[in-house]
Amino acid sequence: MIIVMRPGVTRQEIENVEKRLIELGFKTHPIYGEVKTVIGAVGDKRLLEGHNLLQLPGVESIVPIMKPYKLVGRELKKDNTIVKADDVEIGGNKLVVMAGPCAVESREQLFEVAKKVKEAGATVLRGGAYKPRTSPYSFQGMEEEGLKILSEAARYYGLKVVTEVMDTRDVELVARYADILQIGARNMQNYRLLKECGLSRKPVLLKRGLCATIEEWLMAAEYVAVSGNSDIILCERGIRTFETTTRNTMDINAVPVVKELSHLPIVVDPSHGCGNWKWVDAVSRAFVAAGADGLMVEVHPDPANAVSDGNQSLKPEKFAHLMESLKPIAQAVGREL
Amino acid sequence: MIIVMRPGVTRQEIENVEKRLIELGFKTHPIYGEVKTVIGAVGDKRLLEGHNLLQLPGVESIVPIMKPYKLVGRELKKDNTIVKADDVEIGGNKLVVMAGPCAVESREQLFEVAKKVKEAGATVLRGGAYKPRTSPYSFQGMEEEGLKILSEAARYYGLKVVTEVMDTRDVELVARYADILQIGARNMQNYRLLKECGLSRKPVLLKRGLCATIEEWLMAAEYVAVSGNSDIILCERGIRTFETTTRNTMDINAVPVVKELSHLPIVVDPSHGCGNWKWVDAVSRAFVAAGADGLMVEVHPDPANAVSDGNQSLKPEKFAHLMESLKPIAQAVGREL
Amino acid sequence: MIIVMRPGVTRQEIENVEKRLIELGFKTHPIYGEVKTVIGAVGDKRLLEGHNLLQLPGVESIVPIMKPYKLVGRELKKDNTIVKADDVEIGGNKLVVMAGPCAVESREQLFEVAKKVKEAGATVLRGGAYKPRTSPYSFQGMEEEGLKILSEAARYYGLKVVTEVMDTRDVELVARYADILQIGARNMQNYRLLKECGLSRKPVLLKRGLCATIEEWLMAAEYVAVSGNSDIILCERGIRTFETTTRNTMDINAVPVVKELSHLPIVVDPSHGCGNWKWVDAVSRAFVAAGADGLMVEVHPDPANAVSDGNQSLKPEKFAHLMESLKPIAQAVGREL
Amino acid sequence: MIIVMRPGVTRQEIENVEKRLIELGFKTHPIYGEVKTVIGAVGDKRLLEGHNLLQLPGVESIVPIMKPYKLVGRELKKDNTIVKADDVEIGGNKLVVMAGPCAVESREQLFEVAKKVKEAGATVLRGGAYKPRTSPYSFQGMEEEGLKILSEAARYYGLKVVTEVMDTRDVELVARYADILQIGARNMQNYRLLKECGLSRKPVLLKRGLCATIEEWLMAAEYVAVSGNSDIILCERGIRTFETTTRNTMDINAVPVVKELSHLPIVVDPSHGCGNWKWVDAVSRAFVAAGADGLMVEVHPDPANAVSDGNQSLKPEKFAHLMESLKPIAQAVGREL
Repeated sequence: MIIVMRPGVTRQEIENVEKRLIELGFKTHPIYGEVKTVIGAVGDKRLLEGHNLLQLPGVESIVPIMKPYKLVGRELKKDNTIVKADDVEIGGNKLVVMAGPCAVESREQLFEVAKKVKEAGATVLRGGAYKPRTSPYSFQGMEEEGLKILSEAARYYGLKVVTEVMDTRDVELVARYADILQIGARNMQNYRLLKECGLSRKPVLLKRGLCATIEEWLMAAEYVAVSGNSDIILCERGIRTFETTTRNTMDINAVPVVKELSHLPIVVDPSHGCGNWKWVDAVSRAFVAAGADGLMVEVHPDPANAVSDGNQSLKPEKFAHLMESLKPIAQAVGREL
Repeated sequence: MIIVMRPGVTRQEIENVEKRLIELGFKTHPIYGEVKTVIGAVGDKRLLEGHNLLQLPGVESIVPIMKPYKLVGRELKKDNTIVKADDVEIGGNKLVVMAGPCAVESREQLFEVAKKVKEAGATVLRGGAYKPRTSPYSFQGMEEEGLKILSEAARYYGLKVVTEVMDTRDVELVARYADILQIGARNMQNYRLLKECGLSRKPVLLKRGLCATIEEWLMAAEYVAVSGNSDIILCERGIRTFETTTRNTMDINAVPVVKELSHLPIVVDPSHGCGNWKWVDAVSRAFVAAGADGLMVEVHPDPANAVSDGNQSLKPEKFAHLMESLKPIAQAVGREL
Repeated sequence: MIIVMRPGVTRQEIENVEKRLIELGFKTHPIYGEVKTVIGAVGDKRLLEGHNLLQLPGVESIVPIMKPYKLVGRELKKDNTIVKADDVEIGGNKLVVMAGPCAVESREQLFEVAKKVKEAGATVLRGGAYKPRTSPYSFQGMEEEGLKILSEAARYYGLKVVTEVMDTRDVELVARYADILQIGARNMQNYRLLKECGLSRKPVLLKRGLCATIEEWLMAAEYVAVSGNSDIILCERGIRTFETTTRNTMDINAVPVVKELSHLPIVVDPSHGCGNWKWVDAVSRAFVAAGADGLMVEVHPDPANAVSDGNQSLKPEKFAHLMESLKPIAQAVGREL
Repeated sequence: MIIVMRPGVTRQEIENVEKRLIELGFKTHPIYGEVKTVIGAVGDKRLLEGHNLLQLPGVESIVPIMKPYKLVGRELKKDNTIVKADDVEIGGNKLVVMAGPCAVESREQLFEVAKKVKEAGATVLRGGAYKPRTSPYSFQGMEEEGLKILSEAARYYGLKVVTEVMDTRDVELVARYADILQIGARNMQNYRLLKECGLSRKPVLLKRGLCATIEEWLMAAEYVAVSGNSDIILCERGIRTFETTTRNTMDINAVPVVKELSHLPIVVDPSHGCGNWKWVDAVSRAFVAAGADGLMVEVHPDPANAVSDGNQSLKPEKFAHLMESLKPIAQAVGREL
C-alpha cells in the first residue's frame, strides 16, 4: 500500500501518518520526492479495517498494491480450476454448451428443447423457473413446478441443469433440482445470496453485473469462495454502455483478462449480451476464438411465442447450425466442442 | 405501440402482422411511407405478454408509446405524494434531512451522532446494521444488535430511523426497528426484496441502482407499489460512469426529470455520490437548489476511525455548518429546512 | 416519423400539429389511443429543418422511423462495398492486415518493421507521423519527415500506407504520401476534417470515436460520403466504459451490427482497444471469428523503447505468430488471410 | 512514480528495473513486501518519454504520483484565475451569464435576442456561426456572415461575443469578431485546434468532451496554456452515460472537483447538458449553488422555428425569469449575479 501525501505537507504530518501506520502493524518506508512525499506501507491491508488514513491531515490518496481477491485470484493459485457438475467439466479442454429457453413455460416446451439441444451437442440444459423481470406486470416464472419440469427433461435426455436462484429463501429448494446454481446479473452484488450459495455444495454460475468491473465481479466470486464453495463459473453477459443499438455491450476483452487474473472458468451468454438472435452466431464464434470455456445460449422452439426474451432466442435448427460452425473455431484454438 | 416494418416488406407480411395484432386484441392502423410501413396498434401492451412480434417476418422494431410504469407515474396521478414516517413528512414543503453514520458501530457512537444531527436539524437518523460491502473481508454490520442501538438512540433524541434491509428474510425484523426501510443501490433490481418490502406497512426508501436508468428505477418502485405499498421515497445516489475522480457521478438532471415523470418524492445521498466529504457540501446545495425533497448524509463523530466509508463522512460540526448553508438555498426555491 | 402527443391533449392541439405538418409537406395519419394520441407523418424528415415540433403545445416526443444515414446504409445499397487501395482490397474475401508502429520514429525502425510485417503477411503499413497525444509534453510526431520515411519503407517492401491526418491543413500533404487516410477516434466528429477527407481521392479509414454510438459513427462516414468519397473503411478500436482494467472495451457486437446496417467494410484495432499487447492475440482472433474484414495492429521492433504506446505493441515475432493463429479462424468463417 | 513488480519476481529482475531507472535519471527506493515488491522512483516523469518500463521483465504496473498537468493545476498556482474579456470578468465574485441562440440565423433574430438577454442581465452573447452537426444534411452555419451579425448585435447592446471555432484555418478569422473563442465538446481533443487557439490572444472557452474525464479535460486546457494562452474558461456541458431520458448527464460533482484541482474558472451549459428547456432552470440553479462561475444558456425568440437545438432553448421571458430566480441562490453562496 502506498500513501501519497499532498504537496506542501509538513514533516510533522508525515511522521503522524507513519506513526499511525506503525501502530496498526505496518512497516513504513517514506520516499521524499521534490513536490510530493509517499509512504510505502508493508503489511496486510486488512489491518486498516476501521481506520481511514484519508482523514489524517496531509494524506492525498492511498494506492493499493495487492489485489483485493485472494481465493479466486491467480496470485496464490496458478492452475486453472475445472468445475465439475457430475460428469460435465467446465474449464477443461472440452467446451461446455448450456442451452435452453429463457423461461420454463411448459412440459412440452422443455422436452422439445431438451431433445434438440442435446442432439446438437449441448450438455447442460438452461431454463428459468424464477425470472427477474424489469416489469412487475411480466411473467415471473413457474417456480417449483418449473424446476420439476426442468429437472425431468434434463434427466430424460442426459443433461445437467443450470437455473437461476433469486432469493436466499429458495437456495435449498433450487439446489434440490439444479446441478448448477445460477446467480443473475442483477444479483451479482446481493451478498446474502452469494453467501447462501457459497454454503451450498452445488457449483455456482455467477453472471457479471450489468455495470460491474472485472474486479468487482471477482470480489463477488470471492464471497462465494470464502463461504466454502470454490466451484464457481464466471459468466460474461454484456455490460451497460452508452450504445443502444444492442441490448448490452459484450466485453470480449474480459476473456483474456479474466484468464490472467483468475483461475476460474469463464463462459459467455451471447443471447443477453446482444439482445437479438441475429447477432448471436457471430458473437458466439468470437468468444470461442477468444478462449472462453463455453457458452450459455437461449434456444426456444417457437421464439415468436416465448413468454420472455423471444427476440434473442435461437430456433433449434439455427442453434444446431451454430454448433457446427463453432467446431473449427474451437479446434483452431486447441479446444474441443 | 408502433410496429416498424423493414424496407422492402411484402403486403402479405404487413397483413400477417396486422392479423396477429387483431387476434391479440389490438386495433391496427397501418401507415404506408415511401420506404417503410409502420403499423399503429392501439390496446394494452400487456396483451403482448408471451408473444414476440419481432420474430414475425418483416418486423424491424417496436416502439412503445405508453410509459411502462402506472402506479408511480404522473400520467395517472398528478398530485405529489407526501410520504409520512409518523410525523415526519417527505415530499412536503419542508425538506427532510436524514443523517448518521454509514454503519452502526457502537452505542456511544450512535448516541453521540444522534444528538449532534438532531441539534443541527435532522429529523431522521440513518445507520447501517446490515452492510453490503464489496469485500467479504470487510465489516458486515452489527445486525439485530445494531438495529436495537439505532432505534434506542433515535427514540431518545426524537428522531425517526431509516436503515437498510438486504435480505427477504430480514424484512420483518428490520421493520420492527425501522421507520423507513432502505433498499440499497445494489439491490434495486432484487425483485423479491422489492416485493417483500412492498408487503410491509413501512415507507420504503429506494436507492437508484448504480447503472439504472430513471425508467428502470421507476419500474423498481412500481414493484413495491404493485405489492401494495405506495409510500416510496426515491433516492438518487450517483450513477456509474467513466469518470474516476469521483466515486460516482451525481445525476442532477434526475431531479427535474423524476419530478416530471413521477409523483413520488426524491431525496439525494451526496456522500455516496461524491465519495469524498470535501465535495458533499457543494453537491448538497446543488440538489436542494434543483428541487430535491431532502438529503441523506453520512455523519460520523470520528471519520478517521469509521469502520466504513469514513472518507465520505462529515464531522458533526461540518454537518451543522452545511445545514446552515442550506437554509437560504431552500428559501430561494420556496422550501423550508 | 411518429409524433407522440401528451396524455390529456386537446383536439385543437392535435389539429394544430397536423396543420403544421401539412404546411411543411408531410401527410398525416392520427391514431387515437385510450390515453395517448400519436400522429404518423409521412415525408422526408429534412422537411423539418428549422422547425421544432417539440415546442408545439401538446407534443411529448418524436420518434424517427427512417435511418438518418443514406449513402452508407444498407437500406438503399444492398451489396458490400469493397474499397481498393491500388491492388489491396478491403472488404473482399481476403482479410486485410495493417501493421506497424504507433509512431514513425526513424528510418531504421520503419524499414525493420516493414520487412517483418510484410514477411508475416501484412499488406498495409501503419505508422503515425502526426500523433494526437493526451499530454502536450509527449512526442507529437515527425510530421512530413515521418511521412517520407513511411512511404519509402512501404514502397521498398511492396506495402500500402495508412497514416493519420489530424488537421484540415494537412490533408493534401498527407494524401501525397499515404494510400489510405486515417481519421482518428478523437477526430471522428471533427466535421471539417471529415469533409476535407471526403474531397480527397484516397480511401478513408474512419476510427470509431471513444464514445460514439454506431449510429453516430455511420453519420460521420456519411459526412465523408456526401462530400464525394465513398471509399470508407470503418475501424472499431474500443469504446469508453466504466471498466478500467483495459484501456477501452472492444465492442465485438459492432461487427455483426455494422454488417447489417451498412455496406462498408469494418476492420478492428485491438492494440488500442485492449491497451496491452498480452490481450491482443485473443481479441484479434475474436474479431476475425466475428466477421471483421481485417485488422490494424501495432508492431514495434523494441516496444520497451517505443516513443508511444509501447505497452500495446507486439514484437515482430509475436505478430508473426498471431498471423499464423488467425489462418484457421479465417478459414472457419469462409475467409482467407 | 511507483513501479509495482509482479509476485514471484526475481532479485535480478528488480535490479534490472532499478538500473534502468537510474540510467534514465531517477532515484530509486525499492520496498520489499511479503508478496510484491514496489520501487519508488523520484524524478520528472518526462524522463520516461520514449521508454516503456511495462515491457521490462517482472513489471506489473506503474502508478503515477504527480498530476500530469502543470500550468492549469493548483499544485503550482494556488490563486484562482480571473479571465478578462475586456471589462467582463470570468471567475471573479460576479457570475458571468452567456446567452443567445444555438445558431446565428438572421440579423433580426440576433438583435432581438441580444436585446432581451442584455435586459435580463447577460453580459456575453453566444451564437454559432460554424455548427458541428451530427448530420451532414443539417444546417451548418452562416459562417463569416454570421460572425458579422453576431459582432454587430453584441456591440450594439454592449455585450461581449463568444462563438465556436471548429477549424484551425478559421481561428484568425473568428478571433477578429469574437471576444472569447469557444472550443466545442467534439473538438476537445482536436489538439491542433487547441494549439492554434493557444496562439491567439483571445480567451478560450473549452467545453468538456462528451466522454472526457476531468483529467483529460484539464490536459486539453494544458495544451492551450502551453501554447502561451492561459486565459481559459472550462465549461461543463454534460457527459455521455447510459441514461437516455436526458441528452447528457450533467456532472455536478465536477464543480467542486475542478475547483480543487485547478485554478481556472468553470461555467456550465445546462442547455446541452439537459437537452430540454424544461429542465434548464432547475439545473442552472443547481450549478450556481454548487459554485460554478457562470452559465451559458441557449435563448431563442421562437424556439419552435429554430434551425437547431430549438428544444433546449429558452424563450426570452423564461430566461429573464430564470435570471431572477438565480439571484438569491448566488447570494446564498456569496456571489453576485
